[in-house]
Amino acid sequence: MTDCILVLSGGMDSTVLLTDLLEQGKQVQAISFDYGSKHNCRELPMAAAYCQEKAVPHHIIKLSFINELFSSSLLQSGEEVPDGSYQEANMKSTVVPFRNGIMLSIAAGFAESVGASEVYLASHSGDHFIYPDCRPEFNSSFSEAVLIGTDKQVSLVFPYAVIDKRHIGDLGRKLGLNFTKTWTCYKGEETHCGTCGACDERKYALRHSEGMDPTIYQNQ
Amino acid sequence: MTDCILVLSGGMDSTVLLTDLLEQGKQVQAISFDYGSKHNCRELPMAAAYCQEKAVPHHIIKLSFINELFSSSLLQSGEEVPDGSYQEANMKSTVVPFRNGIMLSIAAGFAESVGASEVYLASHSGDHFIYPDCRPEFNSSFSEAVLIGTDKQVSLVFPYAVIDKRHIGDLGRKLGLNFTKTWTCYKGEETHCGTCGACDERKYALRHSEGMDPTIYQNQ
Repeated sequence: MTDCILVLSGGMDSTVLLTDLLEQGKQVQAISFDYGSKHNCRELPMAAAYCQEKAVPHHIIKLSFINELFSSSLLQSGEEVPDGSYQEANMKSTVVPFRNGIMLSIAAGFAESVGASEVYLASHSGDHFIYPDCRPEFNSSFSEAVLIGTDKQVSLVFPYAVIDKRHIGDLGRKLGLNFTKTWTCYKGEETHCGTCGACDERKYALRHSEGMDPTIYQNQ
Repeated sequence: MTDCILVLSGGMDSTVLLTDLLEQGKQVQAISFDYGSKHNCRELPMAAAYCQEKAVPHHIIKLSFINELFSSSLLQSGEEVPDGSYQEANMKSTVVPFRNGIMLSIAAGFAESVGASEVYLASHSGDHFIYPDCRPEFNSSFSEAVLIGTDKQVSLVFPYAVIDKRHIGDLGRKLGLNFTKTWTCYKGEETHCGTCGACDERKYALRHSEGMDPTIYQNQ
């Protein structure tokens, strides 16, 4: 029996959420998406390893058309990922058009197929400025569409939509998560760059300036 | 410049809609999905050939995970497609969970990537009984989610949502469409079986009993 499907990127937010759901005793299946981002090569192995450690069934779904047909600096086919703060306008080049809608739709169809009644996604309040498909009004209209489109069999749940990434970091620490098992940097190099918007946000979340962040960055 | 993206299956409804949009002078790009249904092998070549004839850019997107992970008698991995009327309860085994949500999400992301402001889908009123993701309330909540999730750049349009398949057939005939260039049968054999729910609906649409249907069926 599967209670829920979790969209797991291998980043810190969804990995905290997986830990959180397991702590609550839920039977989880995780799905990850290989959509051709520059950092999929770092994130996905982390997602797979953590699922193996926790004995969670894990499926990696390949969406090669995104890298081939879509525009975004996050993609291997796109321009360079900008440096700067996560909340800055120039980070908008990292939007992959309607990415969360695509991931949630697939997760909803999969949930219905295996009889799971919930789909979890770890988007949070810090994502709202840049990513339109992370905003509360998106979450609520998409949830309604999924309820109708699955004949009320599947609900979407966004438990972190009202908190920010630092709250998620604090929660993960409380749950005993080793954050070096998660990947955030958009550039997908050997170690976290420390300068892109995603690293900037990770440092904030993990209280880097307070010496609590175990991540190795190229630029501290 | 692309005005709109059309979700094109190679079936009669979406092929009439493509003809209709071209007649209106729209610049269309079409996308089709190879999701492992039994009849994809018949539909997709028809979609490709018609786009080539009309010089419409056409992309076939492979979604192999659907056949691997989802449950439906429509899929190669599923049980046998039932015979009977399209509007009967036993046709519900042909539902591919949240299929239209998945296709529309991908089409929306692609539309935003190429700067097209509209996505067209040819679902119609005869689909409502069996397929929850064809109903008007699904269309409206999903449309709202897409508007929000693309920062108001992409609208969904369901021009045939309020008419039935016979109206679509009549419209196609008016537009001069040769219906033998379209595929409907769920079984995906050499010719239309003539007994599955989809063939039953096609016969109704093309006024088979009035001698106006050019389709060759195994069972007339």
